[in-house]
Amino acid sequence: MTVRLALIGAGRIAKVHAAAIQSLEDADLVAVADAMPGAAEALAARCGSRVMGIDEIAAHQDIDAVLICTPTDTHAGLIELFAKAGKHVFCEKPVDLDVKRATEVVRIADKAKIKLMLGFNRRYDPNFAAVRKAIDEGKIGAVEMVTITSRDPRAPDLSYASRSGGIFRDMTIHDLDMARFMLGEEPIWVSAHASVLVEPEFSQIGDFDSATVILETASGKQAVISNSRRATYGYDQRVEVHGSLGVLNAENQTENSVRLGTTQGYASAPLLSFFMTRYTASYAGEIEEFVTCIAEDRAPMTTGKDGVLALKLANACIASVEQHKRVAV
Amino acid sequence: MTVRLALIGAGRIAKVHAAAIQSLEDADLVAVADAMPGAAEALAARCGSRVMGIDEIAAHQDIDAVLICTPTDTHAGLIELFAKAGKHVFCEKPVDLDVKRATEVVRIADKAKIKLMLGFNRRYDPNFAAVRKAIDEGKIGAVEMVTITSRDPRAPDLSYASRSGGIFRDMTIHDLDMARFMLGEEPIWVSAHASVLVEPEFSQIGDFDSATVILETASGKQAVISNSRRATYGYDQRVEVHGSLGVLNAENQTENSVRLGTTQGYASAPLLSFFMTRYTASYAGEIEEFVTCIAEDRAPMTTGKDGVLALKLANACIASVEQHKRVAV
Amino acid sequence: MTVRLALIGAGRIAKVHAAAIQSLEDADLVAVADAMPGAAEALAARCGSRVMGIDEIAAHQDIDAVLICTPTDTHAGLIELFAKAGKHVFCEKPVDLDVKRATEVVRIADKAKIKLMLGFNRRYDPNFAAVRKAIDEGKIGAVEMVTITSRDPRAPDLSYASRSGGIFRDMTIHDLDMARFMLGEEPIWVSAHASVLVEPEFSQIGDFDSATVILETASGKQAVISNSRRATYGYDQRVEVHGSLGVLNAENQTENSVRLGTTQGYASAPLLSFFMTRYTASYAGEIEEFVTCIAEDRAPMTTGKDGVLALKLANACIASVEQHKRVAV
Amino acid sequence: MTVRLALIGAGRIAKVHAAAIQSLEDADLVAVADAMPGAAEALAARCGSRVMGIDEIAAHQDIDAVLICTPTDTHAGLIELFAKAGKHVFCEKPVDLDVKRATEVVRIADKAKIKLMLGFNRRYDPNFAAVRKAIDEGKIGAVEMVTITSRDPRAPDLSYASRSGGIFRDMTIHDLDMARFMLGEEPIWVSAHASVLVEPEFSQIGDFDSATVILETASGKQAVISNSRRATYGYDQRVEVHGSLGVLNAENQTENSVRLGTTQGYASAPLLSFFMTRYTASYAGEIEEFVTCIAEDRAPMTTGKDGVLALKLANACIASVEQHKRVAV
Repeated sequence: MTVRLALIGAGRIAKVHAAAIQSLEDADLVAVADAMPGAAEALAARCGSRVMGIDEIAAHQDIDAVLICTPTDTHAGLIELFAKAGKHVFCEKPVDLDVKRATEVVRIADKAKIKLMLGFNRRYDPNFAAVRKAIDEGKIGAVEMVTITSRDPRAPDLSYASRSGGIFRDMTIHDLDMARFMLGEEPIWVSAHASVLVEPEFSQIGDFDSATVILETASGKQAVISNSRRATYGYDQRVEVHGSLGVLNAENQTENSVRLGTTQGYASAPLLSFFMTRYTASYAGEIEEFVTCIAEDRAPMTTGKDGVLALKLANACIASVEQHKRVAV
Repeated sequence: MTVRLALIGAGRIAKVHAAAIQSLEDADLVAVADAMPGAAEALAARCGSRVMGIDEIAAHQDIDAVLICTPTDTHAGLIELFAKAGKHVFCEKPVDLDVKRATEVVRIADKAKIKLMLGFNRRYDPNFAAVRKAIDEGKIGAVEMVTITSRDPRAPDLSYASRSGGIFRDMTIHDLDMARFMLGEEPIWVSAHASVLVEPEFSQIGDFDSATVILETASGKQAVISNSRRATYGYDQRVEVHGSLGVLNAENQTENSVRLGTTQGYASAPLLSFFMTRYTASYAGEIEEFVTCIAEDRAPMTTGKDGVLALKLANACIASVEQHKRVAV
Repeated sequence: MTVRLALIGAGRIAKVHAAAIQSLEDADLVAVADAMPGAAEALAARCGSRVMGIDEIAAHQDIDAVLICTPTDTHAGLIELFAKAGKHVFCEKPVDLDVKRATEVVRIADKAKIKLMLGFNRRYDPNFAAVRKAIDEGKIGAVEMVTITSRDPRAPDLSYASRSGGIFRDMTIHDLDMARFMLGEEPIWVSAHASVLVEPEFSQIGDFDSATVILETASGKQAVISNSRRATYGYDQRVEVHGSLGVLNAENQTENSVRLGTTQGYASAPLLSFFMTRYTASYAGEIEEFVTCIAEDRAPMTTGKDGVLALKLANACIASVEQHKRVAV
Repeated sequence: MTVRLALIGAGRIAKVHAAAIQSLEDADLVAVADAMPGAAEALAARCGSRVMGIDEIAAHQDIDAVLICTPTDTHAGLIELFAKAGKHVFCEKPVDLDVKRATEVVRIADKAKIKLMLGFNRRYDPNFAAVRKAIDEGKIGAVEMVTITSRDPRAPDLSYASRSGGIFRDMTIHDLDMARFMLGEEPIWVSAHASVLVEPEFSQIGDFDSATVILETASGKQAVISNSRRATYGYDQRVEVHGSLGVLNAENQTENSVRLGTTQGYASAPLLSFFMTRYTASYAGEIEEFVTCIAEDRAPMTTGKDGVLALKLANACIASVEQHKRVAV
């Protein structure tokens, strides 16, 4: 079966997904939609697709699924529209910044019996996936403590940050999902600390740039997340899982493998610093998962429900910081 | 000047200190005392020292300083005794498990104008010392976030644990001191989570074997500590300091540097798993510091006051866990 | 300027080059030729190209250059044919297994004033290229000693080996080119040792599977190459350059970055074991270099002459082994 | 049984051995001899030993064995003297720079039925010993190719070099012994290249500072040695053994385990650069081996015969370089 897809949005991430679709044998990019006709046309031309409008795509019989790559505030509406049209939906996170609205949309998607996959792409990173696989194979016994280090190369500009929902809903949310993925059990307690250490302007918009979060599950498993909006040495993305029989560490990716030894000691390359370069394989992996789920009629690993649960944890972090207390989820 | 020393206690750690003293040009081990005469005699014979009683050492004119290597509950009394006798004192941590008593003893030592050095040996580890030195040289700019991973190779037996003061006052206290050392600013907030994941028996004595702690300073710097009483892969002792200009990582020490590559991938040695082997250099370093401080008449880097401050943080951790809340220090 | 290209051959490596061409903005794959029409058609369909015959391509006005991806024994003839037709030529190594014939073909290409680029792809590997760049920037001062470790994951089958020209002309030749690239000076002496340690059958065809080579230049710079036809732990491809001010090491690439620590020590992934996966970036890089050289009318870094020089060194290795002596080049 | 030892020589390496003896339970340092009485007295005082003359030690009934730590040209005579006196002998390498004389001395020691151990200390390095142990355990199957990288931090001064016997007999000889240790089979062919790249003055004394050597055994196993008299990044000491089932790598030792990540990438410590610091454990290990061999009446791992065989290989290297040819051993 060939899965026929449409891209909603023709921006940077849409282009990445378009390339992933082209590399798959059983997927076909039929249409591209974008508010800016020029962008849609350019991408469509490069991929041998057609430009269509949202409604045309929703009504089109030869389109099985859509990939929503538009601004966050359009996600919920578009998911609802395409779900009702019976199209499977892949959507960049989040479903919505409001838990109630996000929950409602997930319910609509469920009712429409479509597949709603959320772009928590990091679960498809070959390194993190290998960690999860090793856990499943019993390599470290029972999971006890998860440590996630996640630092952006540089802080976003204020205009982006002010629309982002804040560090916990914009950045930490990826790590909250990763913690859930690795813990294998839902957190019931959250302690979060946050401060402004990088960009003083973040105070003005009530946001933070540095945060530490502890999650604890009912059985006492613990996860800790360390976030910073700026790491001079690159995009710092590490996961460690400590268990009863051992430990698993997924290390960072560097620009190259060359070391220079001199009287000053050794020098080596910084980390990959662009999220698209660092997560190239995981972006391709999530699209392959989406297409395969449709072809094989099975549920994706990251669904709208995962989006809602991560959002609830992000909101608990915010409450923990604001109220200077540990919060029950 | 040759510094003339006496060892109070002739057990395992006393032997380590005796060897350190022998390797120093400007130090002389004059006497050894121990409740078990045989142990004192054996150690004295090996070092060309004499066996003496506590009071004899306190009264002896040719002894400048003592190293207290006896059980925890004797520390406070011995420090007081030797301080009043005008001897400089090196004491294994803690001064006392009770903050009030510890504070009192520190005051007595201050009043006696003796040097009271506390054995937070990890600050003298060449790796952690190199991290601190690099911070002082401005290599990473302003310190923002400290991450300390500290896991014992195996859980102590229940009888030890029940006399230890609990994980926070026995084990985490080293990491709390390390956090203070690296942060360069006192924590004012503590959030701690703890559970029993390793040895179910720890529940019976009201202790924990797995803990995560967040410390936050007035300016918003954050430190996180991850503790486990059991790491199958060895003695896991890492420190990471993230700053405005860069990051510093002190990595673990392995048994050897050999890698084996086969069809299964690469295999390499586990971590050093005995604390005396892992911290060989830091035990020697702290004794050198103590002797040098006496010879040069300057204050040691780790004093009784550091012991009190770390103990207060440990107590805050306990309160945070017991009351399920963030605690102000 | 858009460079219009034709692929001669539609096999495995041709497909890799086709994908590289598609990813370049200024290159267009116009035609595909193959002795097996089905293979050519399949590849052409996937790339939006046309199937043409050799002569049609040679005569076609709208084709600037060809990529020769056919069996070794056809290289010389095809280069000659396309050079005389005025097409630029990218050819997989070698030009020919016979030095005289290879030299003649290079002369024909020179006379035709076309660009003849040889596929010594490893020079375009980002790691090895970073080593060369660091040398050029003076990071290690004067180059003194080069160490190249190059081991295949598994020995080729006898039928391939017997047509390959032997280990030195088939496998070592890449390392001989790398040594020339890193030394920056031509070798004048060769000492080679070789034996059959992996596959006894290699003795029957007069070939070897394990070899060590020393190259020495007029100024005394030395390079050593260590080859094996089988490395259980993956595709072992390392380069080290030792100079007056420092050393550069390009390390291996592993399947992922995950480490597992247990009581047995640490385990990590084997090396990438497929040459196309290991050298993905260098295959793309050499095609980009070829297209750019044509667009900018400059000479490629790896020419037919480099092929002839590497072949002469390979022949010197064979003479050294056969005659049990050091050979002057 | 306590083994009673005397030190012949009281210089730098003698002090290292004295400390090793003191740390052993079953060894006693009875006497120290040195041409300079002051040096002998200082060392004896520090160790609770007596100063004696050579003849007194040879005649002393309560001395079981001697450690010869005097200049190279005295080794043969002293070994002969003490062997005839029935003392076991540990001697720093070489026995003698002349193969004939060295062979004669080994024969004398054999005849006297004393243990003659040669200080090829590197075999007792925990890392290289772990490599050998893994080979013996079958971890890499049959040994095929050995790669030894051995570079001094800085070139010796000319006066030392001119008395040293040249790079092959002074420096490479350690690596030739290591190659024999790892190959487990005697080399029958030697190809050596050498040049002056570091210190032009070495040409004046007919010596070299940069060398590459290939050794080949009867069954075709190959070893390669890469030597330089100067490595800016520290004391470079690596061993790699490639076998039918895998590969073993003993990596370098660095000054500390700290990494600094900044916008420039990662920086880490240089290698340990002093041979006594790098080989601390192996110096202690060889003395323990010597004492144990005497106590248990078994042959040491490194004997005078190993010294003769390594010297023959060194001489073959010299012949290979001088005559520009491969040499049969």
